[in-house]
Amino acid sequence: MSVKFAVLGHGVVGSGVVELFYKNKESIEKRAGTEMELKYILDLRDFPDTPYADKFTKDFNDILNDDEVTAVCECMGGLEPAFTFVKSCLEKGKSVSTSNKELVAEKGDILLAIAKEKNCNFFFEASVGGAIPIIRPLHKCLAANEINEVAGILNGTTNFILTKMYNDNMAFDDALKLAQQLGYAEKDPTADVEGYDACRKICIISSLVYGKHVYPKSVFTKGISQIDLNDVQVADSMGYAIKLIANVKKLENGKILPCVMPMLVSHDNIISSVSDVFNAVLVDGDAVDKTMFYGRGAGKFPTASAVVGDLIDSVKHKVTVFSQSWESSEDDSFIESVDNFKAKWYVREAGKTPYITDNELTFAEAQKLSAEAVIPVLA
Amino acid sequence: MSVKFAVLGHGVVGSGVVELFYKNKESIEKRAGTEMELKYILDLRDFPDTPYADKFTKDFNDILNDDEVTAVCECMGGLEPAFTFVKSCLEKGKSVSTSNKELVAEKGDILLAIAKEKNCNFFFEASVGGAIPIIRPLHKCLAANEINEVAGILNGTTNFILTKMYNDNMAFDDALKLAQQLGYAEKDPTADVEGYDACRKICIISSLVYGKHVYPKSVFTKGISQIDLNDVQVADSMGYAIKLIANVKKLENGKILPCVMPMLVSHDNIISSVSDVFNAVLVDGDAVDKTMFYGRGAGKFPTASAVVGDLIDSVKHKVTVFSQSWESSEDDSFIESVDNFKAKWYVREAGKTPYITDNELTFAEAQKLSAEAVIPVLA
Repeated sequence: MSVKFAVLGHGVVGSGVVELFYKNKESIEKRAGTEMELKYILDLRDFPDTPYADKFTKDFNDILNDDEVTAVCECMGGLEPAFTFVKSCLEKGKSVSTSNKELVAEKGDILLAIAKEKNCNFFFEASVGGAIPIIRPLHKCLAANEINEVAGILNGTTNFILTKMYNDNMAFDDALKLAQQLGYAEKDPTADVEGYDACRKICIISSLVYGKHVYPKSVFTKGISQIDLNDVQVADSMGYAIKLIANVKKLENGKILPCVMPMLVSHDNIISSVSDVFNAVLVDGDAVDKTMFYGRGAGKFPTASAVVGDLIDSVKHKVTVFSQSWESSEDDSFIESVDNFKAKWYVREAGKTPYITDNELTFAEAQKLSAEAVIPVLA
Repeated sequence: MSVKFAVLGHGVVGSGVVELFYKNKESIEKRAGTEMELKYILDLRDFPDTPYADKFTKDFNDILNDDEVTAVCECMGGLEPAFTFVKSCLEKGKSVSTSNKELVAEKGDILLAIAKEKNCNFFFEASVGGAIPIIRPLHKCLAANEINEVAGILNGTTNFILTKMYNDNMAFDDALKLAQQLGYAEKDPTADVEGYDACRKICIISSLVYGKHVYPKSVFTKGISQIDLNDVQVADSMGYAIKLIANVKKLENGKILPCVMPMLVSHDNIISSVSDVFNAVLVDGDAVDKTMFYGRGAGKFPTASAVVGDLIDSVKHKVTVFSQSWESSEDDSFIESVDNFKAKWYVREAGKTPYITDNELTFAEAQKLSAEAVIPVLA
């Protein structure tokens, strides 16, 4: 008996999932330990010229009410109707694999609770770092560790822009235009450039690592639109690259401090070598010390690779993987205010040579400096 | 009811496993979903001053014949008695997690077959790349991919030596002495320096990725003892670092080609930034493109982290994880001869300026050049 699954959405990622499944069907089935059949693709558009045109449906209920379908890949993006569809699938005991970071960051706790209740799985490896295996390593391979800190380059668009500023001395606006021309940035680049995309991803990582749902609204987020080419060049001469870092730390008071900010990263830190659209996640655990995961953070097949990997795992696991889960948070009192974020800071004051502070200052203290630019240094 | 486990060997890694278990017991049990109890530590020596002195036994049969013990961590190293002990445990249905690369590289197929038959698990995340999660990501997260190539820096000792040659212009002998002083190299450094350690690790990766046991004797292995400081410097000026690369490729003829050799790695390749005792594994899959895993390849707690991570997973999985497995190989006809290894080559001929060949040559062709040094370039 083959396992039957459906794909919600036939955009970039969804079509990648379908193509990848047929391309590597034989080895995917071997790894899943069973034959697999793609039964439905949900999309409001018609795709008459694809080899699997007969799989398409415009009616979600075809999938929801078909008890043969036990696994679903959600690749629509956005909160609705994705949330309603995924929730309905899980309530029927269908496991879901998603690439939708907004969905996981805003509604993960609710969906994980339903999956647990119905003894199925809600998997989301593709929602953080695209192709990079990070969710499973964090909760499985590093399960023996207390995680002190996670610091990542989680947005490829901004890393591409910063790389162009750094390598080719392009101003921010020119680098953004180039990213748009190459298809790395959207027409409205706000979500990437202002750090909202990276914020969703650090919310997912923080929730998984520390066990309570962290909402985007609780996370201080600053993008790269204010980064001056001059600062990139001066930082380089001081031995640093400027990167948009999504970061979460466990503090001594027991709280966690997630944030997204441009930071100076020492050339000695391997994260500074992560360039172009590549992403990387550096994990600091009490036993492993520092370990890093690197790869393509977006793109059709890299993201599809993660979705299909999750699909295979959900076919193999008939019961809920409870370690890949977290609880709802009643309030954000477990999250420390960014005002208490401590670092050394790169400071540029009018008419003075830029410098790095000798001592750590809090975020609140750094903001009080009468400076034209203050950027923290990643420790 | 708590799950009871035993640790075989109380050397560097074994004592790390014990200490890490007690240090993070609460969160380890939470992730395992059950209480856990360390019941025995096997060692021929006495450790009267440890807080768990009562756990020690010198008699393996105490562990083997105790049906309460359902999981075992093997941290003894070497082929015997590790093989006999692990085999006996698996035959009794006790899951085993090991850090012993020699055991996995030489006997993995036999032990995996027994685990499958007895419906328990033989896990070995710690045997490759120490702290770096690589085994689980390869067979789980990247399960949707056909793996084209894996290239890794899998030995910390040689990477430390090459880093010292590169950064500090130290000759090989001096860098080796320093590594020995710092405890990174053993008195007899042969296994590290001549590439045998890296060879065992690429055997394990090759077996897992391509499904058939690859024995160390089938893998061409060349170490770094012949690397000249002059070549390190010239390569640098050409834009390359010299690294000891353990490599396996899937060829168009369906065979695989594993090997261990010093190679020139372009500064544009992030692997060239992996320095000191750090390890890294670069995986090229047909969907993910390139992804890299980086971290400490050895050391007490990093290695223990991987062993305990496996222990937690073996407690959670009551049945065999069959994707983390491979079959015995009757012969090595599925392995291509190194003679057909293709690359561009760095060539230094007497009295001439060193150069890199314009075209790819096979290993056999490169050996025929009347050169003082021929080193392949990692593509």
